[in-house]
Amino acid sequence: MSLLLRRFAPASHVRWGALTVAGSRHMSKVGEGTPDLMTGELTALPDINVSRLEITRNPKPATPPPSSSLVFGHTFTDHMLTIPWDLLSGWGAPRIQPYGPLALEPSSTVLHYAQTLFEGMKAYRQENGKVTLFRPDMNMKRMNNSARRIALPNFDGDALLELIKELVRIDKHWIPKEPGHSLYIRPTLIGTQKAIGVGPPNEALLFVICSPVGPYYPKGFKPVSLYGTTEYIRAAPGGTGAYKLGVNYAPGVMPQKDAAARGYGQNLWLHGPEHYLTEVGTMNLFVVFKKDNGAFELVTPPLDGMILPGVTRNSVISLARDHAAGKSRLANLPENLVVSERAVTMKEVQEASKSGRLVELFGAGTAVVISPVDRIGYLGEDVHIPTGEDGMGPVSRPLWTELVGRQTGTIPSDWSVTVTN
Amino acid sequence: MSLLLRRFAPASHVRWGALTVAGSRHMSKVGEGTPDLMTGELTALPDINVSRLEITRNPKPATPPPSSSLVFGHTFTDHMLTIPWDLLSGWGAPRIQPYGPLALEPSSTVLHYAQTLFEGMKAYRQENGKVTLFRPDMNMKRMNNSARRIALPNFDGDALLELIKELVRIDKHWIPKEPGHSLYIRPTLIGTQKAIGVGPPNEALLFVICSPVGPYYPKGFKPVSLYGTTEYIRAAPGGTGAYKLGVNYAPGVMPQKDAAARGYGQNLWLHGPEHYLTEVGTMNLFVVFKKDNGAFELVTPPLDGMILPGVTRNSVISLARDHAAGKSRLANLPENLVVSERAVTMKEVQEASKSGRLVELFGAGTAVVISPVDRIGYLGEDVHIPTGEDGMGPVSRPLWTELVGRQTGTIPSDWSVTVTN
Repeated sequence: MSLLLRRFAPASHVRWGALTVAGSRHMSKVGEGTPDLMTGELTALPDINVSRLEITRNPKPATPPPSSSLVFGHTFTDHMLTIPWDLLSGWGAPRIQPYGPLALEPSSTVLHYAQTLFEGMKAYRQENGKVTLFRPDMNMKRMNNSARRIALPNFDGDALLELIKELVRIDKHWIPKEPGHSLYIRPTLIGTQKAIGVGPPNEALLFVICSPVGPYYPKGFKPVSLYGTTEYIRAAPGGTGAYKLGVNYAPGVMPQKDAAARGYGQNLWLHGPEHYLTEVGTMNLFVVFKKDNGAFELVTPPLDGMILPGVTRNSVISLARDHAAGKSRLANLPENLVVSERAVTMKEVQEASKSGRLVELFGAGTAVVISPVDRIGYLGEDVHIPTGEDGMGPVSRPLWTELVGRQTGTIPSDWSVTVTN
Repeated sequence: MSLLLRRFAPASHVRWGALTVAGSRHMSKVGEGTPDLMTGELTALPDINVSRLEITRNPKPATPPPSSSLVFGHTFTDHMLTIPWDLLSGWGAPRIQPYGPLALEPSSTVLHYAQTLFEGMKAYRQENGKVTLFRPDMNMKRMNNSARRIALPNFDGDALLELIKELVRIDKHWIPKEPGHSLYIRPTLIGTQKAIGVGPPNEALLFVICSPVGPYYPKGFKPVSLYGTTEYIRAAPGGTGAYKLGVNYAPGVMPQKDAAARGYGQNLWLHGPEHYLTEVGTMNLFVVFKKDNGAFELVTPPLDGMILPGVTRNSVISLARDHAAGKSRLANLPENLVVSERAVTMKEVQEASKSGRLVELFGAGTAVVISPVDRIGYLGEDVHIPTGEDGMGPVSRPLWTELVGRQTGTIPSDWSVTVTN
């Protein structure tokens, strides 16, 4: 059963010859354009166009499983969004269709050269049925930045966001209502050129799938242990660590197994002979030091090209800075707070641990929100990190409370974007 | 029309409970095994088993296009080989089947986390119909090394090679006979876990596709220019540069476009503040210096973890070493030859160019064999590299002649492996 719910505009007409493009509302602002074969002029190709959306309802919708049975990323909703792109005709008609396999040529460049990037977002459903997203504009912006880094096509982020909202509306009954639960949204962009030359692909596919997820720590916070990793790297200057690309993930699996074999939960990725702290597993990293003057310093590594510009990272910094500046005070957060984006070495962390000036250390990311750390295996010994009664410390706890409140919409803020009331 | 040509052994019987495994000839030598759920003992899972091969002939075979029209990696033969793997039952029955799209779940981890690796091999067809491969054992070994690095399953390389030979035999009429032509073979291994957690996948797919290709330089050698790249990296210590993984390729596309915009053909990947030469585009690198004593020194960067252990690289080194040692002299190659696997900096190349002691510089790889270089854009000026009348120099030319002779089988050697007579 294929039900075409709406199609406001006629399909774009693209002819090989003069590359006539019609019916496109959003013209490409970011694409490079293609020279008109007759006049030599650059002709903009169609961008993602919300009005061309075609919806095919799943004829066999599934029953969402009990929220208590959810395992991260294993269950998917009834529908997915797909938007094809090719070099000559730009972005094609978006489709919301039943969740199901993609037919990919074995020559597709994503399968050979890792031409893939993705985002991680969450939709939250309140008791009253209202559904919200958290700072989705940041995901759209970062997704376009990622695309530029590996020569995949750019697109109108506002248009994609509208389509994601429509997908979430259609599958909103899949969003668990229970506290700490949400719908994890995974926009993905892959190169699908059907030829195994290494170069910018002439075809691509953007798709979005959704997975209902429970809280990362269903039984309260459990601090993780880290293995200070110097044998393997996650990123390096001139590399891709600052972009949310598939290539940053596959190489981390084996080091993670290695850390687990040594008795640690995650890798703490250390950079250079100075052993600068960079990231934790697949999360951004924060450290809190007690200063001589009694102030608390919240430190995170700067965006120097190796650090992913995380949405949670940015949110933690913003909340802490607004608090420190007296602009928007958070309850229970130390008044005397300094926020630093600066390099931090293992030597500094180790010395602070020994002298009692290390307050806490935690990871931050969309999946986990905030993840406290209790020890770091480093050069053969364990550096101990203080953790509070419930795992969290005096700085992370009030920040987490505010952040989760804003994410779920219980604390009103302009970071929360309504999908449906 | 599905034609089952042969199936020597019954399918393996794998039960979830006690993990009983039957019908497997090749037991996993390399897999980690799985604890028997009843006894706790490690039970080896089935490895790739040639005798389980199922062949489905393509009911609509295509006509190979004229060899003169071939573009690298755009045309594929009638059949492909697929071998599924999963964590509980190991390697499944290999299938040779019509070339066509793979149905992949949108949650497949290869599409999100770049869990992919590949090999590049060539089959050559002589006038008399004999078909050969070149040192395929090296590809099988490297493919297993690559798999270990990103937690994909290992396999019996000899078994895969037998299956590849069968695939090539079935599609042997696709191998162009013309000089410099061959069948490019692309074994690929991808993670296909249907859940978006980051970890070793519980499912994988090995597939092999084949593409008839012409010579890289159909009109004689054309030296390439290189952009000495310091803004971007291909590899770094602790990374994946020494493995043939998809993750090494997507990040190189944008820097290549950047080099092209500056008027250069390829990137010369320079490492560290010393600007060590590492690789050229997607090829290994060789430099030839003239020494004070009149000797020629053939230099290539050592396998320090950032350099791909190329089959062509290894072959060039072996031929040159055997020549230098007097073991197997090559015509026209300077007698006084020294072969060095050592670090080389741009400063050394630049100074040798100025003092007239730079003899030549070339890339080496399966697709191109040997690719001469005529200049390097470096820190705002061009370093000029001598090239012979036809592009090649006094060291690369005789090595290329021997190498291509051995590859195509016109010079007999144990590097050439017969597929069919």
